[in-house]
Amino acid sequence: MIAGIIGAAGYAGAELIRILSGHPKVKGFSLGSVSLEGGLIEQVYPNFLGAFSSPLVKPDEVIEKSDIIFSALPHAVGEPYAKACIDKGKTFIDLSADFRFDDDEATYTAWYSKAFAHPELRQRSVYGLPELNRSRIKALAASGPLIIANPGCYPTGASLGIYPSLAKGLAADGTIIVDSATGITGGGREPQKSFHFPEATDTVSPYKVGAHRHLPEISRVIKTMAKEGSGAAVDLIFTPHLAPMNRGILSTIYIPLKPQWQGLPGGDDPRPPTKETEAKEAEIRQCYQDFYKDEPFVRILPQGVFAATGRTRLSNYCDIAITLDQGGKILIVTTAIDNMVKGASGQAVQNMNIILGYQETEGLEFIPALF
Amino acid sequence: MIAGIIGAAGYAGAELIRILSGHPKVKGFSLGSVSLEGGLIEQVYPNFLGAFSSPLVKPDEVIEKSDIIFSALPHAVGEPYAKACIDKGKTFIDLSADFRFDDDEATYTAWYSKAFAHPELRQRSVYGLPELNRSRIKALAASGPLIIANPGCYPTGASLGIYPSLAKGLAADGTIIVDSATGITGGGREPQKSFHFPEATDTVSPYKVGAHRHLPEISRVIKTMAKEGSGAAVDLIFTPHLAPMNRGILSTIYIPLKPQWQGLPGGDDPRPPTKETEAKEAEIRQCYQDFYKDEPFVRILPQGVFAATGRTRLSNYCDIAITLDQGGKILIVTTAIDNMVKGASGQAVQNMNIILGYQETEGLEFIPALF
Amino acid sequence: MIAGIIGAAGYAGAELIRILSGHPKVKGFSLGSVSLEGGLIEQVYPNFLGAFSSPLVKPDEVIEKSDIIFSALPHAVGEPYAKACIDKGKTFIDLSADFRFDDDEATYTAWYSKAFAHPELRQRSVYGLPELNRSRIKALAASGPLIIANPGCYPTGASLGIYPSLAKGLAADGTIIVDSATGITGGGREPQKSFHFPEATDTVSPYKVGAHRHLPEISRVIKTMAKEGSGAAVDLIFTPHLAPMNRGILSTIYIPLKPQWQGLPGGDDPRPPTKETEAKEAEIRQCYQDFYKDEPFVRILPQGVFAATGRTRLSNYCDIAITLDQGGKILIVTTAIDNMVKGASGQAVQNMNIILGYQETEGLEFIPALF
Amino acid sequence: MIAGIIGAAGYAGAELIRILSGHPKVKGFSLGSVSLEGGLIEQVYPNFLGAFSSPLVKPDEVIEKSDIIFSALPHAVGEPYAKACIDKGKTFIDLSADFRFDDDEATYTAWYSKAFAHPELRQRSVYGLPELNRSRIKALAASGPLIIANPGCYPTGASLGIYPSLAKGLAADGTIIVDSATGITGGGREPQKSFHFPEATDTVSPYKVGAHRHLPEISRVIKTMAKEGSGAAVDLIFTPHLAPMNRGILSTIYIPLKPQWQGLPGGDDPRPPTKETEAKEAEIRQCYQDFYKDEPFVRILPQGVFAATGRTRLSNYCDIAITLDQGGKILIVTTAIDNMVKGASGQAVQNMNIILGYQETEGLEFIPALF
Repeated sequence: MIAGIIGAAGYAGAELIRILSGHPKVKGFSLGSVSLEGGLIEQVYPNFLGAFSSPLVKPDEVIEKSDIIFSALPHAVGEPYAKACIDKGKTFIDLSADFRFDDDEATYTAWYSKAFAHPELRQRSVYGLPELNRSRIKALAASGPLIIANPGCYPTGASLGIYPSLAKGLAADGTIIVDSATGITGGGREPQKSFHFPEATDTVSPYKVGAHRHLPEISRVIKTMAKEGSGAAVDLIFTPHLAPMNRGILSTIYIPLKPQWQGLPGGDDPRPPTKETEAKEAEIRQCYQDFYKDEPFVRILPQGVFAATGRTRLSNYCDIAITLDQGGKILIVTTAIDNMVKGASGQAVQNMNIILGYQETEGLEFIPALF
Repeated sequence: MIAGIIGAAGYAGAELIRILSGHPKVKGFSLGSVSLEGGLIEQVYPNFLGAFSSPLVKPDEVIEKSDIIFSALPHAVGEPYAKACIDKGKTFIDLSADFRFDDDEATYTAWYSKAFAHPELRQRSVYGLPELNRSRIKALAASGPLIIANPGCYPTGASLGIYPSLAKGLAADGTIIVDSATGITGGGREPQKSFHFPEATDTVSPYKVGAHRHLPEISRVIKTMAKEGSGAAVDLIFTPHLAPMNRGILSTIYIPLKPQWQGLPGGDDPRPPTKETEAKEAEIRQCYQDFYKDEPFVRILPQGVFAATGRTRLSNYCDIAITLDQGGKILIVTTAIDNMVKGASGQAVQNMNIILGYQETEGLEFIPALF
Repeated sequence: MIAGIIGAAGYAGAELIRILSGHPKVKGFSLGSVSLEGGLIEQVYPNFLGAFSSPLVKPDEVIEKSDIIFSALPHAVGEPYAKACIDKGKTFIDLSADFRFDDDEATYTAWYSKAFAHPELRQRSVYGLPELNRSRIKALAASGPLIIANPGCYPTGASLGIYPSLAKGLAADGTIIVDSATGITGGGREPQKSFHFPEATDTVSPYKVGAHRHLPEISRVIKTMAKEGSGAAVDLIFTPHLAPMNRGILSTIYIPLKPQWQGLPGGDDPRPPTKETEAKEAEIRQCYQDFYKDEPFVRILPQGVFAATGRTRLSNYCDIAITLDQGGKILIVTTAIDNMVKGASGQAVQNMNIILGYQETEGLEFIPALF
Repeated sequence: MIAGIIGAAGYAGAELIRILSGHPKVKGFSLGSVSLEGGLIEQVYPNFLGAFSSPLVKPDEVIEKSDIIFSALPHAVGEPYAKACIDKGKTFIDLSADFRFDDDEATYTAWYSKAFAHPELRQRSVYGLPELNRSRIKALAASGPLIIANPGCYPTGASLGIYPSLAKGLAADGTIIVDSATGITGGGREPQKSFHFPEATDTVSPYKVGAHRHLPEISRVIKTMAKEGSGAAVDLIFTPHLAPMNRGILSTIYIPLKPQWQGLPGGDDPRPPTKETEAKEAEIRQCYQDFYKDEPFVRILPQGVFAATGRTRLSNYCDIAITLDQGGKILIVTTAIDNMVKGASGQAVQNMNIILGYQETEGLEFIPALF
């Protein structure tokens, strides 16, 4: 099978190459780059020298020569390539946001300042979070070529942490807060002031508070989850931060609980969590465990182990830890992913595996690197 | 004036030395260490070689020889030294938690597993957050030697970010969430697994979720602020995280607003913040600005500048940024401090300045180091 | 095939697990730990949770159950296990220094303060640098179980950078200087002051200057290379440094050149390299290229690309860059490896592949991770 | 006294502001920026907000209003400003390379591709390494306005480490090798690929090997030192590296010793340093100690303490450690500086103090920050 990658010279493209080059079913590559067409990928990334070599060609050539096409292009430029793929009967796995809002063009336009180029393509697109949409992806794939809207990095870690609370009826109506920190590869390959080493190291800072484009995406996903689950009416607050590391997203999520899922506080003044609260916490953890028991890439951490981005490094796992605050009313879920793998290229390959009928974990069974 | 430091060989002690050695009023030092008594401070910290030299003596000798005594000892071991100071008519500035709960021994004991050794000392102690307690500190100092309960690092950044919302009546009744990330110096000088470079770098992780000792401290402070302010009934959730940097604490704080302070959302689905919400945000920012207008160490950041720990590096500033989420109901305050300065040793010196009647900023007017 | 690892709970052991778990020929594991016997490896390393599970058993049990045994024990404790392996007809791949000095017990003892426990074992041991000793390894393996003295991390990067200059007669008699910087995983899993995050980050420092145990090892290897090559009489200076990163060793090597290999300086005062010097540099680069042309894990970098540890990350490559100083007399070779892979566990697996007659690259064909 | 800074918006300019704002004699500032003229410095650096405010004006206005002028402009653009200063009777402290080669225009041109704009200015310029040229600086200052060629960052740490060996006749004729690693602030404020966080963190790499512009500068300085000292004929090899840290330069320097200064090796094969070698090392250390005994900013480290950039952080110190390799023939000197302080802005202020007759340490007595 020949894998095509458009936008291959960016970080997500390079990570796709790294992952797919070890995938047993991938027999060849066709790599496209608009800006670096005519060059070689190993000139862009000297780490590939001698290990992987490929010319960078025009996107059209990639589509022509490949069996499945990944697009790691920026937002709002890839629709013509998606259309070309569908027209030629080929599946298009899009790492941009262009197809993440289904037919809700108003929301897409409000946040991305751009109209849909080919609205009709949404009939063939599906949001590619396998844990939520596996059957939809399979169904769509059964009927012809499709477009995968591969989820954003923050939305992946956030919505996987929230999902069971909505599906199982733990969450009360109210506001869910997602407070996340990302590694700096999330900002891509282009040097800029915020990612200049002396400015980016040894500091943590929020950015685009209350105004990040992943907010409507997460909101949309969890509302779908709520609707298909317990029907809770949930709002979302989302605050992203930059942390001085390369890979990883840590999301700390605050979910108001229905009374029957709450713990018992120790008194009027704060006290360390009571036995009752710890028991309720264990129940909720079990609930998460049950919910994800067949998911190959979700790990519910045992009591006492907190999520840490470093423990998912270079893997496709989403780690989830469950804690109940001492007050007992708010469920604190912390999730960790590798933003470049489960948060981008690994999840794209997971989607490819589902679509092509491969084992879902094929080529993705990495033990997380310790360091 | 001779400054005494007990527990001088720990990180907070060393930072006190660095700051006080540039203080115009400090003419000499007496340094104490229980475990390293008999050695020299420059043997512990080779960065001091040739720049600062001092023997490490017994704590009793420090108390004897000094005009004012700082204690950077761990929790639950310093009370006898506090008593000795008061008995000798000397002020004791305590960087541990021992005096942070006033006479609420039950809460202290619940979290620190220790009773008060000398309960009566609480009549001479005060929580040393100058922005909250400046007049109380001065009043107590006017009547004799006192004990300063120097605030914890997290509580400093958290409570300064919350204070105006409670004093000015912005905050509604409800739960305030503080989500914080600290640099690794917060863990002190003793090597341990979580702070081993290969485990601590390139990863972000929460720890002691819902069970950190600074939770009851922050809770206590903000309840005091609420009581003396608008009377709002507020609860607290607090989640600390470790980030791969040395200095700094970034706190992202979620405060439910009273209706009159809320913004206007753009619709049922999330939209970028409306003009009305931005106007309300500007009003709130102005409110914070007014509240802190005479505070030398609090900086309210202008619109578009977010708090970043790196911008307070090696300074005594607490930076505060004000944002309203697009939904308009939750005020998101982000604060940044240098955990070793405003979060520990710098604030201790600020307290010293207040007590001794010096200019409050004396010896603390550092421009934050860019890197 | 069952792979056994003694000392599995240390960093090199954990890295062996990560690599071997993706090796097509490895069907099972037996993991040993003296100090953590009775536990599970995933309790030691939560990154393994759900991805890899194994009890930690006694070393004897590991030897019993495994087809080949890796030892990641510290120096001077593993000989009894080596003996047990040989006695049972099993190969022992030793990541410690115990067998790196062949029968030169005097040098070993001078640096490791320990005598050989079983001197006779040296008849079955060989220094496991495949690029130097591939045929010796194969020959020994053909005659029964053997002991691989897996090279030290610094010696791997240093001697591969020097080898062609000695084999091909470029190096003049004289002193070769190796100036290296290692990532902090080189110090192992045990927390200690030098590796405490606040002490280890944002600083570079040398250590054990002129007195590091890898000095006699590198010296021994390059003297062998010289003897089997051009016969140059070479001495060694070696200076290790700690750099604030996790993986990687960068070695900058200064080799005095024979007159016929020297460039032409631009004058009495320093000038940018002349065309003649650049031409000579290209000749030398070609010489290195030719020498290593069949080596799967050595990459000679093209002109203008310097070695960088980050470009070998998580791979078994040794990158080598060739430069001639503007003065033309000294060849400056820079080499980069991942200290945990080519510098330890990856090279051990490479040796296993050779011994067991597998494709030498099997299970080791990783594209270096960009970050 | 009013301090003027041209090129104030770059990193060296910002560091000058930070240092000079704490200098007792500096009463005001005039800041110039060609590209950001009309803005405010605190808009460029939000860490200054509320702590330091100044407009950015035209360079000519800076010269007009200031008593002494620092230039942190890039190379090859500042001569007209230097001329304007001298013409107006004002001293110009130049952090660029333009005046570092005295009247050797050929070398300057060979490396900087630019002719001198005003060759005659070299009659009023002096290389501003106080430890070498203090009396020359004073003499020139006594006769009118002057130009300080403030040394490069690498040359400062390198030449201070070499100086005593040449002045005291320790060094034999031959090649001195300087192998250095710098923090990334050395690359300045402009974002570029090599300094993009994901490319620059977790990796060490050499750059411009044998071709860095500081090579002719160091060469020139040490040849002057040799000529004024023992007369040794020395050549230079210099290799710079990038390390993932912000501040600091670590230089490891290899100096061939005259026979009378050599140690006694332990045998043909490498052995740990002998007592004789250690004794000789102590003699050499004492020699360095004596040589620098009156220098306020040079610290000779005691036996067993190695230079570490982190221990000079934010200080004007140059730390020097002395080691003799076990072979006894090569002196290994390691030096550490903060590249932004002693390697740039701090040294510029030290020069200002000398010129204006202030205490040389005034405004520069910082204890190095631990972290």
